[in-house]
Amino acid sequence: MERLTSVILLLFGFTLFAFGQNSQKPSPQTIANQMVQTALAERQAYRWLEDLCTTIGPRLSGSKAAVQAAHWAADILTANGADTVWLQPVMVPHWVRGSVEELTVHAGNGHSEPLSITALGGTIGTPPEGITAPVIRLKNFDELKARRQEVAGKIVFFDFPMDAKKVNTFRAYGEAVQYRVFGAIRAARYGARAVLIRSVTTRYDDVPHTGVMIYADSVRKIPAAALSWQAADTFNRLLDQHPNVTVTLRLSAQILADTLNYNVIGEIRGTERPDEIIVVGGHLDSWDVGCGAHDDGAGIVQAMEVLSLFHRLQIRPKRTIRCVLFINEENGSRGARTYADFAKTEGRMHYAAMESDRGGFTPRGFTTSADSAILAQMQAWLPYLRTARIEWIRKGGSGADVSRIPNCPIKMGYFPDDQRYFDFHHSNNDVFSGVHPRELELGSAAMGIMTYLLSETDIQMPTGTNRYSTH
Amino acid sequence: MERLTSVILLLFGFTLFAFGQNSQKPSPQTIANQMVQTALAERQAYRWLEDLCTTIGPRLSGSKAAVQAAHWAADILTANGADTVWLQPVMVPHWVRGSVEELTVHAGNGHSEPLSITALGGTIGTPPEGITAPVIRLKNFDELKARRQEVAGKIVFFDFPMDAKKVNTFRAYGEAVQYRVFGAIRAARYGARAVLIRSVTTRYDDVPHTGVMIYADSVRKIPAAALSWQAADTFNRLLDQHPNVTVTLRLSAQILADTLNYNVIGEIRGTERPDEIIVVGGHLDSWDVGCGAHDDGAGIVQAMEVLSLFHRLQIRPKRTIRCVLFINEENGSRGARTYADFAKTEGRMHYAAMESDRGGFTPRGFTTSADSAILAQMQAWLPYLRTARIEWIRKGGSGADVSRIPNCPIKMGYFPDDQRYFDFHHSNNDVFSGVHPRELELGSAAMGIMTYLLSETDIQMPTGTNRYSTH
Repeated sequence: MERLTSVILLLFGFTLFAFGQNSQKPSPQTIANQMVQTALAERQAYRWLEDLCTTIGPRLSGSKAAVQAAHWAADILTANGADTVWLQPVMVPHWVRGSVEELTVHAGNGHSEPLSITALGGTIGTPPEGITAPVIRLKNFDELKARRQEVAGKIVFFDFPMDAKKVNTFRAYGEAVQYRVFGAIRAARYGARAVLIRSVTTRYDDVPHTGVMIYADSVRKIPAAALSWQAADTFNRLLDQHPNVTVTLRLSAQILADTLNYNVIGEIRGTERPDEIIVVGGHLDSWDVGCGAHDDGAGIVQAMEVLSLFHRLQIRPKRTIRCVLFINEENGSRGARTYADFAKTEGRMHYAAMESDRGGFTPRGFTTSADSAILAQMQAWLPYLRTARIEWIRKGGSGADVSRIPNCPIKMGYFPDDQRYFDFHHSNNDVFSGVHPRELELGSAAMGIMTYLLSETDIQMPTGTNRYSTH
Repeated sequence: MERLTSVILLLFGFTLFAFGQNSQKPSPQTIANQMVQTALAERQAYRWLEDLCTTIGPRLSGSKAAVQAAHWAADILTANGADTVWLQPVMVPHWVRGSVEELTVHAGNGHSEPLSITALGGTIGTPPEGITAPVIRLKNFDELKARRQEVAGKIVFFDFPMDAKKVNTFRAYGEAVQYRVFGAIRAARYGARAVLIRSVTTRYDDVPHTGVMIYADSVRKIPAAALSWQAADTFNRLLDQHPNVTVTLRLSAQILADTLNYNVIGEIRGTERPDEIIVVGGHLDSWDVGCGAHDDGAGIVQAMEVLSLFHRLQIRPKRTIRCVLFINEENGSRGARTYADFAKTEGRMHYAAMESDRGGFTPRGFTTSADSAILAQMQAWLPYLRTARIEWIRKGGSGADVSRIPNCPIKMGYFPDDQRYFDFHHSNNDVFSGVHPRELELGSAAMGIMTYLLSETDIQMPTGTNRYSTH
């Protein structure tokens, strides 16, 4: 009879849980229902997010607000059931935008037109009077290479839009973002004086989108900025109409000395396997525009809410649930590196790690870099996860922060619907009103259910995964 | 070898298509890709929706705008590949809100407070001086029955909120909406003078939500209105603090004589089975608040876009694709009844009918009332439908309009994500800016792919389904 039941359950896509001997322990479906209903009814993560956005606001690495946010989060974790909370010191880059960011187009017929731009994160500034130079407009890096003789002394404009035809907006982002990240290096190699890009966004408005850019030691540093979508369209019209266009770019950005910020860590110690850790995290820092509501305020309040849901529902996890809010994801990953170094020496095992850094939208799935055999075991949990509208678990990346954790066999990323994310991302559009309470909270619940299943289930690990793999 | 291929395809959840002998016909996956990419890149439905909202606006049955909208849609269908377009006359109810809708709470200590309300659709007005009466607040119909002796001469306030804990917002809506629809009849039976409800919404703001209410011939007609969520909260505080609260309700709503409106019908004649019709539709009318952007502007531009996608992609469907925009879904279903009567006498078969009337949000699935054997065949199409982010096809309702079509074996409703819909529904929140272009267009593409698969595939119908069922 018991075997028959097993077979039937397997047929329906369930795996049997080893839920210990306590027959009064609620079923995973009961826990899933409770997490969803509590999250939707109480909207705790949403209220934290409003508080974060209104009392602290944007919290770029190196800023005072990033330190305030760390204390804010630690206080909340302490008050919401974490039995151990600490700040982990991290020296982070300190870039400041300054007050000036201007692009003026001189059409050559006496007409000048200012266009909306944002300095890219990490750029140097221009001289106070700006850089005035003719423009070379390029579709992509191939055209840069082909026309490299024409670049010296000019300002390069990479007009590479995110591809609207791609359903997965992260794929379109991945393709377009290389001009933001590497554009300055590539253009400076051929003698460009500055670089401009079309904002990497899906929203066609006048709000420019920032994000990290990098320099190489071997290449001269040149300033870099992004035009809003509308500004890029206007710029193109002016370039089409007036062949001798020049522009003046003024940026007052500066790179200051590294400064002290913190990762925030709070955990609920596991009852049976306290040395097996499940990380649930997001990144504490944001860009200095908007208030980082989706990126990654949503992720951090969801991660905090997972801990809080265990506390409010009085669930004592078998494994240790650890909320980690990483600093400096946006421009350096110093928080992730510091945490990874700590994990190597801590003497405990990272059983699993989950990150939310794709916005606070309605749930779709989880992506994981775990081994296929592990993936298959997790996919058997979908009936529970569907309670929070999770439809799939697939192979894929986990996230910029948790991916660095060493010797962790199950790394995963929460994947909400991605159609609206890049409307907000890295811009003044990314404010609290753009986050929907029910969408955000279904995400909290989805992550909570996944955390619970990871905590209470013994996934069969491929032999040799790590020292805990064979029990 | 061919058998092996079949087996493999079946194992992966595909069914083989009978795509005729023409090997140059594109594969369903190619069509799916084209529909998604075209919809996302061109945003045609979105641009039509903007035009509808800005040039015509709300289009309540009986209004001139509803007639304008019919001509607007017919012109677009004619210009976008429909080979036959006509307006189908429908006599519809004609209710008007008038300019007065006021609720004033008299706390009994000299303090009076106005609260945000909206007349419910179909309500009678009050006398010009309003109705002033004490209030009885009730949780639900059970409490109404229990306290029926206290109701006479009072204004009943049904304070039944939509249940935030339910993940499926349509379920929460179905539970709460009965107070809006039947509240006046139920309260009037016990002598109530008017009825007030808490708006049926998921959004906690000061915008009240309207919607249809009905009277019974045997029961005295009393006026009915909805308070915004915030107004209902304020009302509750006043009721708690001041036991002798009275209120004055003033509504200038009127029921006028029925008037002439139109269904809009446009079709692309099938090349092989022109007498087998696939309806794709939404409803042309809206409430008179907001501009009916999600309800159901989204549905009608998606249905129009399906026809247009066939035209722009030069797909000649085997079956006839018919876009039907039904009038008067909101308060009478006269358009659906007229179309159903027409279908009975037309002498053609309705092979399938699909409706979009749950907002223009990111795709999730389709619900269908079709037989299980038919459902299973459609579920085999999911690999194609996933191109537009459709994850499932399930048993469920089709829609208020297409459900009336007689002898149609495959009726279905498009089911987008439902977390935000009732924020907008039937209120001044339901304007164009609340619709996201990518979410709307993925829906157009999802419906287009489904329409294509229905058109080109011969679903095995259960014997006796109708006269076309056995071929």
